[in-house]
Amino acid sequence: MILFGEGVTTSPDHAAAPRRASDMTETSPRIALMLGDCTGIGPELSARVLHGRILGDSARLVVVGDMRVLEQGMRDAKLTFPVKRVTSIGAIDWADEAVPVIDLQNIDPKTLPRAKVSAESGRLTGETLAYAIGLASRGEIDAITFAPLNKAALHAGGWRYPDEHKMFAHLLQHQGYFSEMNVLGNQWMARVTSHVSLREALDLITAHSIEDAIRLSDQTMRRAGIAAPRIAVAALNPHGGEGGLFGREEIDIIKPAIDHAVADGLSVDGPFGADTMFQMPGFDAFVVMLHDQGHVAAKLLAEHAAAALAIGTPILFSSVAHGSAHDIAGKGVADATAMIEAILRMAGARR
Amino acid sequence: MILFGEGVTTSPDHAAAPRRASDMTETSPRIALMLGDCTGIGPELSARVLHGRILGDSARLVVVGDMRVLEQGMRDAKLTFPVKRVTSIGAIDWADEAVPVIDLQNIDPKTLPRAKVSAESGRLTGETLAYAIGLASRGEIDAITFAPLNKAALHAGGWRYPDEHKMFAHLLQHQGYFSEMNVLGNQWMARVTSHVSLREALDLITAHSIEDAIRLSDQTMRRAGIAAPRIAVAALNPHGGEGGLFGREEIDIIKPAIDHAVADGLSVDGPFGADTMFQMPGFDAFVVMLHDQGHVAAKLLAEHAAAALAIGTPILFSSVAHGSAHDIAGKGVADATAMIEAILRMAGARR
Repeated sequence: MILFGEGVTTSPDHAAAPRRASDMTETSPRIALMLGDCTGIGPELSARVLHGRILGDSARLVVVGDMRVLEQGMRDAKLTFPVKRVTSIGAIDWADEAVPVIDLQNIDPKTLPRAKVSAESGRLTGETLAYAIGLASRGEIDAITFAPLNKAALHAGGWRYPDEHKMFAHLLQHQGYFSEMNVLGNQWMARVTSHVSLREALDLITAHSIEDAIRLSDQTMRRAGIAAPRIAVAALNPHGGEGGLFGREEIDIIKPAIDHAVADGLSVDGPFGADTMFQMPGFDAFVVMLHDQGHVAAKLLAEHAAAALAIGTPILFSSVAHGSAHDIAGKGVADATAMIEAILRMAGARR
Repeated sequence: MILFGEGVTTSPDHAAAPRRASDMTETSPRIALMLGDCTGIGPELSARVLHGRILGDSARLVVVGDMRVLEQGMRDAKLTFPVKRVTSIGAIDWADEAVPVIDLQNIDPKTLPRAKVSAESGRLTGETLAYAIGLASRGEIDAITFAPLNKAALHAGGWRYPDEHKMFAHLLQHQGYFSEMNVLGNQWMARVTSHVSLREALDLITAHSIEDAIRLSDQTMRRAGIAAPRIAVAALNPHGGEGGLFGREEIDIIKPAIDHAVADGLSVDGPFGADTMFQMPGFDAFVVMLHDQGHVAAKLLAEHAAAALAIGTPILFSSVAHGSAHDIAGKGVADATAMIEAILRMAGARR
């Protein structure tokens, strides 16, 4: 078993200079690519992302996972490209055409059922993620991107976190607020609550958590180059509570949080009924209260194109808004647009 | 003040035969058109619906309201057409080109603020609706369509119901289940809960209420000519509860309700995560748990085209899924597509 932080034998080497790299490549972030749950479409998406170096000089990618899983992804995607095992990040020649792979040799996909939730796959996928987080927390890589995981498998495999972001925060011993932002083209979206039951979400929605989500969205977008992000905040209840008739959270909690952010100079407006908000022009970002408020809209607006970025954690993570898609696993039809977009956005925010 | 049922002096006359009407017109339903809250876009929409008899022989419309409000609607829409005051439904010559108006003389729009929530407007709008319901409950008309109301105004004006459907049910002394269906082209949608706070909605979602919504959707669609409606049912929690990780309502409540309906021969499937359900092909209807689950999707799929039908009440009602739209009141830009669609759907279900 690979434990968090174990398995890297060389010392961190931030200054390891690539021999033949261009100036641009030298400054681009080093990103660990984790192949996702191998029972789903993760390995196939990863192969599509890595094939032909389509990210160009935007990022330096290193696969962290099992070579056999990557090879399965190539077969699924019907793509081949040169790969090269490396034993440490410091040993990577970033100018080499071959994709560097830190081969953990921990997951043999032949022993795991395809397109089924597998506790064993979840356990090993979690181990791989923890290993990548160890690399990042020691400064050997700058960020992590991961192909779709399977939450139920992770949970069954002993990684009992409601979602991967809570898992990362725990492994990073991060105590502050953190969340996820989705990006659809020029439209950003953040959620005050996410992977919790609706009953629990109602208890988590406070003026404090709303303000945290607004401020962190604003900061993240400024880092990504949007000078003065204009943020719309959703209501919780139907029709924004209809003036208190259908709930008072808008009056008692959401509006005060918005007013507080506005008083500090942020460009924030709302609360708006979630069903009318997404048609409103003039906003760069939407902050919603509940997972489905945002995701019903996001998936209709761009089914496969929602990139997902972790916000608030000290290490940047990117992923996609969709799951391991067992229904199309192994069929060679998975769409990597969102994962590519996510990596490019994260690389942009990192610069 | 006009009370429920007051004000009609002639006896019900179901057989009042139009003198010059075609056979088709004779069998088309008699529908009372109520002009909506006059501070909003209701009168303008009504004028657009009535102008040029664009509904053809599908329905026989009679305006129930104040002539001055209808005239305001004509001015807003920049449309004119002949109108004729009538004192009772029985006295209407349905073949006359002029639109019949039962002029209640109860609302002078000049005395009410435009584009503002008005308790007085709400009070009078509620009176007008109650009058129309009286006509329907005595069999003088077959159905009611109404332009957008303003819920906050109705409430402030003493009509203290969470929404108009609950008001209708109360005035009709209807005890059984009732709800609303939206129609977007060939796609129908029903909600288990609607105009209540999210906290209250959680308590109202039971296996019984879900099954009621499924069965009533099935019945309504069969009446509208869909032989064997295929119905998808949404989950309540994110990702359908992710196998119980984010709430157990899917396992304990929703799935058993679906299984029960399936055992009775209905074509029902789910529960599906609300964020992925609307892309799923092969369904005629979606049954969602919460107002925003359905309406975020409906408004993105067709912003102004969602028709709304009451289901379960003994008298048919139609309206639209949007509100009184104070932001564009009096600007002459309101879109009547949804209201026209709603009337045509209701007329179809009535035949």
